[in-house]
Amino acid sequence: MAAYGDADGTRAAVRELLTTYNDLNGATVEELDHEPSPLEFMRSVARNTPFVVRQGAASWKSHQKWTPDYLKDKLAGQRVNVAITPHGNADAPTFSPCHGSTVIAKPHEEEQAFDEFLDYVTTQELKQGSQSAEVRYAQTQNDNFRNEYISLFADAQSDIPFARIALQKEAEAINLWIGNSCSVTCLHRDPMENIYVQVLGRKHFILLPPLFHPCVNEKMMQPATYTRTGGVLTLEVDEDEERVPLATWDPDKAEREATEFSHLAKAVRVTLDPGDMLYLPAMWYHKVKQSSNEEGCVVAMNFWYDMDYSGPFYPSTTFIRNLGVSNQK
Amino acid sequence: MAAYGDADGTRAAVRELLTTYNDLNGATVEELDHEPSPLEFMRSVARNTPFVVRQGAASWKSHQKWTPDYLKDKLAGQRVNVAITPHGNADAPTFSPCHGSTVIAKPHEEEQAFDEFLDYVTTQELKQGSQSAEVRYAQTQNDNFRNEYISLFADAQSDIPFARIALQKEAEAINLWIGNSCSVTCLHRDPMENIYVQVLGRKHFILLPPLFHPCVNEKMMQPATYTRTGGVLTLEVDEDEERVPLATWDPDKAEREATEFSHLAKAVRVTLDPGDMLYLPAMWYHKVKQSSNEEGCVVAMNFWYDMDYSGPFYPSTTFIRNLGVSNQK
Ligand SMILES: O=C(O)CCC(=O)C(=O)O
Ligand SMILES: O=C(O)CCC(=O)C(=O)O
Repeated sequence: MAAYGDADGTRAAVRELLTTYNDLNGATVEELDHEPSPLEFMRSVARNTPFVVRQGAASWKSHQKWTPDYLKDKLAGQRVNVAITPHGNADAPTFSPCHGSTVIAKPHEEEQAFDEFLDYVTTQELKQGSQSAEVRYAQTQNDNFRNEYISLFADAQSDIPFARIALQKEAEAINLWIGNSCSVTCLHRDPMENIYVQVLGRKHFILLPPLFHPCVNEKMMQPATYTRTGGVLTLEVDEDEERVPLATWDPDKAEREATEFSHLAKAVRVTLDPGDMLYLPAMWYHKVKQSSNEEGCVVAMNFWYDMDYSGPFYPSTTFIRNLGVSNQK
Repeated sequence: MAAYGDADGTRAAVRELLTTYNDLNGATVEELDHEPSPLEFMRSVARNTPFVVRQGAASWKSHQKWTPDYLKDKLAGQRVNVAITPHGNADAPTFSPCHGSTVIAKPHEEEQAFDEFLDYVTTQELKQGSQSAEVRYAQTQNDNFRNEYISLFADAQSDIPFARIALQKEAEAINLWIGNSCSVTCLHRDPMENIYVQVLGRKHFILLPPLFHPCVNEKMMQPATYTRTGGVLTLEVDEDEERVPLATWDPDKAEREATEFSHLAKAVRVTLDPGDMLYLPAMWYHKVKQSSNEEGCVVAMNFWYDMDYSGPFYPSTTFIRNLGVSNQK
């Protein structure tokens, strides 16, 4: 009959899993100097392995035309959804002194006139001393590029042909991201094949493969949302919402919140310059920091294609997570 | 800190792994009516999912010309390697009364004149009562089609273009399989992308996905080899060889040697007729039975391409195996 070992046996197998992965895979991102064909892309999807196309979007109008003034002009009169946090910590694990525990901090969301929002972002970036004020980031991830920002959409490719052809599907969402260096997107993963295109400023990705769940110290956390009360942002626990799993280990502070496996994580770092394109495969953990250009903002877009749930990839990724489930209590 | 459960927790996670896989994947083999393009093939590789191309090799000369007489003519004077077993049980777990244990039974190997070998195979199949005699099978799996059987090679495609282009490699081995219905290839797996082409007679494949290791009751087994002593085949233990892992569960005798997970295995069955082509993805378990044509033989060939060890597939497949390692003692 099948016989499984105790927790120590499982831990030994997890160590071997991670070291085997490291032995068989490079710890750098492959660099391409032109867009892949659908077949070349499918090979990367099959390997669940990222690549960067340096200057892959350099010919796009967005790359050639976009400046803060151009954007304000195109979006004159438009109101947009803005995520507001005190420290640029949207959706990050955040210690709440009022509740005496670490919660997942959802941003306060506000509709703002686009020009006002963008002025705020660039001023905060460029004017000394204003970094301590609240942080604003347009990051709705709800296909906003084909909605609020539709007047800019003609400047981008309407999709990524190599991905649409290879994956046999249309993009599920196309998102625009507008902010400054005060915002950090903390380590998380999405069930999406992601083509990320940098337009203004730079993004600094830290990547970890899906199998490295044992390293990220996922914990169940109560959602809480920032609300403005008397001009200050305070965290209010979302009483009606269930706790959700969140990675608490940060590759940039590797000694904190580490699990016994975190030291085996070979985080892959890649910086996108304007015009660069990243393929971020489904279920890869990513943390994203940003640095603005001289005009004080960072603008990027991403094309999300639903991942394929068939075959062994999704069940085995979930399995590795489920094994450590006692970790999430 | 990371915390893993006990064996019961692991078993629950394994059950969920297998049921998730079953929920997300069909239990039949996709049927194509023409060869896939390299991109279409790569999608199947990415999903690690088999397909059959009905009549995919119908235009090959092998399909149109091969008969026992034609083969004997082409191979006149040629000696070939033949695997000989008492019951068609090459490489199968076999109880050895002398040793009081189940061993992995490696065939006795002999060089035989091809015409003599093929006459034996067809006569055994067609002549009543001869089924109890020793069983002969040409099944060397050492690229024999481009060696011993090279004089037939021009009748086949020299490779599988869609696979070569998609995988960016040449076939590692091309093998010819010649036998009759007395031979059964027991459940096992190979680290190869396999394109299997049926020429004469039929093959009956039973397939299980790589994640279903917990179902196959793998056990460490001593290799033993049949030797002819005084006309009888007896099993001699290979004293110098280490024990190797072997699946002991047989989907055709599902109640025997079952693990607590075997009932979750949805074995996929597919029969290849002459001219059919099967894509058997890397690491899939397969058991293969055969039924001969009116001329008393079964002939097939397969094209083996080394699997890709990069990405999460190989490490997670190995991980699932390693977790159950106490099972292999
Ligand atoms: O650009 C960012 O801040 C985060 C991007 C991200 O998480 C994504 O593309 O999935
Ligand atoms: O045809 C057979 O008997 C077995 C085939 C096989 O095991 C393979 O193609 O890997």
